[in-house]
Amino acid sequence: MGAIFYPRAIAVAGASEVPSSFGYHFIRHLLDYGYQGHIYPVNPNKEVILGLKAYQSLGSITGHVDYVICCLPASKVVDMLYECRAKEVKVVHLLAAGLSETGRQEGRELEAEILRTARRFGIRLVGPNCLGIYHPKGGMASTYSLPQKPGPIGAVFQSGGASQLLVRSGELRGLCFSKVISYGNALDLGESDFLDYLAEDEETEVVASYFEGIKDGQKFLGALTNAARAKPLIAIKGGQGMAGAKAAASHTAAIAGSEVIWRTAFKKAGVTMVRDLDEMVDCLVAFSLLSRIMGNKAGILTTAGGGLCVMAADVCESAGLNVPPLPSDIRNTLKARAPGIWDWIGNPVDASLIVAGASSAFFDLSREMASILSRSPAFDFVLVELTDDNPFSDEEWAEIASAQTEALIGLHRENLKPLAVVVSGGTFGAHVSQYERWDMLSAQRARLVEAGVPTFSSMADAALAIRRYISYCSLSATE
Amino acid sequence: MGAIFYPRAIAVAGASEVPSSFGYHFIRHLLDYGYQGHIYPVNPNKEVILGLKAYQSLGSITGHVDYVICCLPASKVVDMLYECRAKEVKVVHLLAAGLSETGRQEGRELEAEILRTARRFGIRLVGPNCLGIYHPKGGMASTYSLPQKPGPIGAVFQSGGASQLLVRSGELRGLCFSKVISYGNALDLGESDFLDYLAEDEETEVVASYFEGIKDGQKFLGALTNAARAKPLIAIKGGQGMAGAKAAASHTAAIAGSEVIWRTAFKKAGVTMVRDLDEMVDCLVAFSLLSRIMGNKAGILTTAGGGLCVMAADVCESAGLNVPPLPSDIRNTLKARAPGIWDWIGNPVDASLIVAGASSAFFDLSREMASILSRSPAFDFVLVELTDDNPFSDEEWAEIASAQTEALIGLHRENLKPLAVVVSGGTFGAHVSQYERWDMLSAQRARLVEAGVPTFSSMADAALAIRRYISYCSLSATE
Repeated sequence: MGAIFYPRAIAVAGASEVPSSFGYHFIRHLLDYGYQGHIYPVNPNKEVILGLKAYQSLGSITGHVDYVICCLPASKVVDMLYECRAKEVKVVHLLAAGLSETGRQEGRELEAEILRTARRFGIRLVGPNCLGIYHPKGGMASTYSLPQKPGPIGAVFQSGGASQLLVRSGELRGLCFSKVISYGNALDLGESDFLDYLAEDEETEVVASYFEGIKDGQKFLGALTNAARAKPLIAIKGGQGMAGAKAAASHTAAIAGSEVIWRTAFKKAGVTMVRDLDEMVDCLVAFSLLSRIMGNKAGILTTAGGGLCVMAADVCESAGLNVPPLPSDIRNTLKARAPGIWDWIGNPVDASLIVAGASSAFFDLSREMASILSRSPAFDFVLVELTDDNPFSDEEWAEIASAQTEALIGLHRENLKPLAVVVSGGTFGAHVSQYERWDMLSAQRARLVEAGVPTFSSMADAALAIRRYISYCSLSATE
Repeated sequence: MGAIFYPRAIAVAGASEVPSSFGYHFIRHLLDYGYQGHIYPVNPNKEVILGLKAYQSLGSITGHVDYVICCLPASKVVDMLYECRAKEVKVVHLLAAGLSETGRQEGRELEAEILRTARRFGIRLVGPNCLGIYHPKGGMASTYSLPQKPGPIGAVFQSGGASQLLVRSGELRGLCFSKVISYGNALDLGESDFLDYLAEDEETEVVASYFEGIKDGQKFLGALTNAARAKPLIAIKGGQGMAGAKAAASHTAAIAGSEVIWRTAFKKAGVTMVRDLDEMVDCLVAFSLLSRIMGNKAGILTTAGGGLCVMAADVCESAGLNVPPLPSDIRNTLKARAPGIWDWIGNPVDASLIVAGASSAFFDLSREMASILSRSPAFDFVLVELTDDNPFSDEEWAEIASAQTEALIGLHRENLKPLAVVVSGGTFGAHVSQYERWDMLSAQRARLVEAGVPTFSSMADAALAIRRYISYCSLSATE
């Protein structure tokens, strides 16, 4: 595995100067992401590719090569493996598609021949039919414009496209990644090998996985259980339904198996199973950005009026969270500082009620409420919902919102208690609306994300992800 | 009700020039939204407010007044009702909060006195503790920056803030509203009266509702059943859990009742019950923008690679939709036009496979696939998922995406079959990302919304909303 993530020299077979080809893309990626080892473009017809000396064949490279990114069509892979043997290459990443996943006899046969050849020569394969590795620390990536900042999340994905969407959606929420592996048809190295690796990997604290089919069930269950014991493991099982299983077969030739069996196995292994990438990103935000939560009592503050408070309480309770009444010490604080409304306020705390007082003392109090909730032993964590529901002018609100955001960031840094923020609305971008406050909400959200505050798009999403995180925390505490 | 939505003259009691006061806001709203009747600011200490002649009292207004927006504190409401009697006012909208929802004896008593007085004088009340009416066609609104374009959706909301969020979130998805009523504590006019009105209202084709508590259960069930029979009715019941019910009591003094009873009653009445505003907006997109769907067979096309196809199939099937295989006529079309890959393509159609061919004929085919699916009797509706998962440069992709968007808009206009588009990703705005394609996706989304295409943020959201719409269509077809 060292040769996969820390190769000293990478050759790109099928290197090209055609900007729409993978042979071009992968050289660009190595250059763009700052790969520090030697890069050897291989193309029999070129002397220079993207400013690098090109080689006629692998054999004509003078230096050592541990890793080959093979952008050649499937029909040329076996010949290339012969070249790799001579060069003592350890790992080959095969992009080539059009093999067993086509469902055709000739595809299956060619794939089998590739595997036989690689095994014979002691060469390990990533793929075929896969985009390979994103390893920001090592300067390796599978597509353009992925973030270069590394972080604690590792991912094993049977689908390269989905893994890229995960990274990009995650970036918008402040998630950073250690290593992301897409392994396609899993002809040689597969889900179990990469799970084993990430379970041990010191750069990885949380693991995300997308599986379609499994080649060796016994081995996989072992790897899954082992990984889920080592660190939180959040997984999607693709191909659970009839049509999905069919799609999986033509995607990665995976035999998907039945939903019930999968659910049982994942649950037994302690895996957090999610439905789609959105839920996965929500869980990764909770699992990697929240400090440990040891109970399900939520202290909730919303800046929106009563209806949003009611719905916040409802979705939290229906997700299995507990929304207890305000304890007497907080009621006493309110009684002293907001005598006109103290007995009217509950949990969720309706900050609009406090703000309706409209004196500056009340603004201070509404901003402090998150901190007051965080200091109370009555709650295991605090959830704050920010909306634009208030009676102020844009200018006034911009000032209030900014103070609110900074107060939340300060509280996050104090780390008295796990804190998450819901910034609802504006999910469709502000393009179609004349309403400037969507941009203001977006800016609040961006500032919170930048500061590392766990941030969600809706109370329902937050409640579900946090409840899953609490289940994980309590499960791992009892082990 | 005519006096509520089409008043010939509105007086604003407690009119003010202080820009943070409701007495200022509501005059501004009438001016800003183009209310065509007479506007009479009432304030004993001012001669002119916002350029309008101000009146010392209601009695000093010479013309007729049918509607009063009362921004006075609760303690002054009874006196004002005496003035209203003399002026033969028909309806008073009471903003005043601090009544029964405080849980305090004096609040309950004052509220009861207000009701007794109004009843005695034959004056109908909207509120108290409510933001009132948004009626874009009539030039009435309850807050700033709501869209002025009217549309087919009517809403009855116990929470004014939540109703405003609904309108604004809806605007981002192309939803327009006929009349939105927030009715707060429902002291006089309440949920049943407004439901009855919207059920009959010719400007309203779909009804959205948020209820916390009900004063007269029998009357309400009648109104609910009647409204749901007349047009689709999508509702949230706030205060279902313990904490939510408590929050509802301190929000609008509502007695929320148990979840099970509510669910049963709503279901029996044919109401589509949803969890929160996000689900409500999704349903309104489906119910108001999709043409009728008479079966659950989905033809799906995604521009993303295999993993997204698999997950699309899974979430659709798990939502109760059917994702049948491609019929033989479509397979034959593919065989003729894409001989290298025709047998590899299923439903969901993986457009990335087609595009991977990278010849311009293949681009044309991938763009035509939505139309091919729409023409097939094998499907009841077509779902298209757009993502940025493709190997092209930004410039190439911008061109492809734009052609794709226009093709979908053309197809939407042809109206061969109900068509919905999922534009995933980018929900957190592009502020934190260096990745320009979020903006490109956002622009695609905005263009589709502008053209009236039903658009969703994720396949899971789309599947759930569409399945609910299909249930409604089949239920209403059997009646």
